[in-house]
Amino acid sequence: MSELRQNIITRDWVIIATERAQRPDQFAVAKRELESPPPHQSNCPFCVGNEEDNTVETCRLSDNHHNWKVRAITNKFPALSPTQTGVRISDGIHRTISGIGYHEVIVEHPRHDLTTALLSFQDLANILLVYRQRYSEIRKDPRIETIIIFKNHGESAGTSLEHPHSQIAATPVVPYQFRTRIDEAIRYFDDTGKCLFCRTLEDELAAKERIIVESEYFVAFIPYAALSPFHTWIFPRRHSSSFDDINDEEIADLAIVLKTVMAKIYYGLNNPDYNYTIRSVPTGELGTKYFHWYIAIVPRVSRQAGFELGSGMYINTSLPEESAKFLRSVAYQKRVQSSYVP
Amino acid sequence: MSELRQNIITRDWVIIATERAQRPDQFAVAKRELESPPPHQSNCPFCVGNEEDNTVETCRLSDNHHNWKVRAITNKFPALSPTQTGVRISDGIHRTISGIGYHEVIVEHPRHDLTTALLSFQDLANILLVYRQRYSEIRKDPRIETIIIFKNHGESAGTSLEHPHSQIAATPVVPYQFRTRIDEAIRYFDDTGKCLFCRTLEDELAAKERIIVESEYFVAFIPYAALSPFHTWIFPRRHSSSFDDINDEEIADLAIVLKTVMAKIYYGLNNPDYNYTIRSVPTGELGTKYFHWYIAIVPRVSRQAGFELGSGMYINTSLPEESAKFLRSVAYQKRVQSSYVP
Repeated sequence: MSELRQNIITRDWVIIATERAQRPDQFAVAKRELESPPPHQSNCPFCVGNEEDNTVETCRLSDNHHNWKVRAITNKFPALSPTQTGVRISDGIHRTISGIGYHEVIVEHPRHDLTTALLSFQDLANILLVYRQRYSEIRKDPRIETIIIFKNHGESAGTSLEHPHSQIAATPVVPYQFRTRIDEAIRYFDDTGKCLFCRTLEDELAAKERIIVESEYFVAFIPYAALSPFHTWIFPRRHSSSFDDINDEEIADLAIVLKTVMAKIYYGLNNPDYNYTIRSVPTGELGTKYFHWYIAIVPRVSRQAGFELGSGMYINTSLPEESAKFLRSVAYQKRVQSSYVP
Repeated sequence: MSELRQNIITRDWVIIATERAQRPDQFAVAKRELESPPPHQSNCPFCVGNEEDNTVETCRLSDNHHNWKVRAITNKFPALSPTQTGVRISDGIHRTISGIGYHEVIVEHPRHDLTTALLSFQDLANILLVYRQRYSEIRKDPRIETIIIFKNHGESAGTSLEHPHSQIAATPVVPYQFRTRIDEAIRYFDDTGKCLFCRTLEDELAAKERIIVESEYFVAFIPYAALSPFHTWIFPRRHSSSFDDINDEEIADLAIVLKTVMAKIYYGLNNPDYNYTIRSVPTGELGTKYFHWYIAIVPRVSRQAGFELGSGMYINTSLPEESAKFLRSVAYQKRVQSSYVP
């Protein structure tokens, strides 16, 4: 029979629908007929040679030969922009703020045909370094309250651009969802004197059955009340509220954990579309004891339907324990990508 | 330039991304190559003749000749079931409840090939009558806290079944999202002595520019901070916290408004996939002054991507005022469907 589990961090109730449960491998997407894309595509705005396209480069990581490895650029169609003037209008029940903020693209690699699962550990470390650098820079703008790093991979995850890229968005407000989660984390901290995320991590490490992979500094697991199949969290073991507090050693370690999880998803579920996001505390609350930054990975192997829209609850047709066991068992190519640059 | 608007009912901030704005008609889905389905399909579990498929019929509306017009049946693969024993376990940080509840399908019409936009006013009134009857019945079970009526139309809205149907789900918990919205509505009520929803309706009626259609008892509009393009709300003018409080005259009127909105979306956007949901106050709070039931319609013409997942904020690439103006202008077939029964 089905059961409801409460996700203690998001506070959402999830129906683990065992009546409709599928075996982990049944979530694998059908083999794609598409040929793999070429390593370079002349009309791709992110490919080498097409850098001058009216975007502004905000960060570049280069090798000794001045070829770039990772670039951060302004989004060509930004949802938010730092050049706007800050206006906040309260008119009756309407609240409006001008679209101040940042919206940048991180071009993850010169090669067009790679994806997180196929990049080398060093490639991933480079991307994380650029995330940290842009995060630290953007945080300095006092108009910014929240910074979100995210990646869309594939059409059902919201992108039609193949070239490996992620995004960073910075908003002049704290999103309501952040506020409610922070409120709950504070309540837990006040009740117990502990960080809710540290406590969750302890619990997952003791239970073991939902762990995918762990390293010196990070633990990847499918939460007890995962909102969707293979919904994965990567938590730093060290309590820290904001991603940009990560040090170089932790970046090298996280690169290995992230690559491992993404490769297991890629080979085990046949390259599904996915999103990942990095969540941190709002910029003004750095150093807080009650919030803990983390990465959430959401393979797009199921859909939100009317029930989810109408209730904010979730129906998950997989068992987190079985999904984690399956991912633990997936073997993948550890071979590091050649550093071929087109 | 883009602007952020706060949805005062959901409290979500929405980026109205005018830089990427599309004209309303650009959201129309590409013409579908599919033939329209036949009025009867022998292998469809909801078609006439296939009623005996191990589901239990919980409600039937029939004509004088004992042909059915609308049926409610138990879901063949229920996410929740009333026959479970109620168990609530709190184990450390884990909270689990057995999957008690209801999960039924409303087969909306004998014909396989129709959809909300193509049904007659009377057909829709019949469906609403069955919604009300099942809602009132299920409410009597003291284990139920929340009842959600919803419809999934099309693959991207979460269904592959063509036969027109909707669902009713009843849960043994109040979803966290309901709790936070109720808390905000209470706070508004305590501050002003007014229902936040009544106040929103007043505001929309005064502004006029986001109204799609209004009738004696209902108003359909695109909210000021619509979370996605063509996200539409239908509010009853009469303050009432729960859908099952609707009377017969209001049902006849709502049928016309719902049909009108769905037909405008169908013809204006070329039959997009969509969800609609009916939200009411939790079952134990009937009669409350601070909550107001309503219908939310979400055409699936855009996708949630990593930004939405990582922040709970939304990027809407349409202007609610323009979308409403467009829908107002859409002409549609008012011709009532023949009541042909296969």
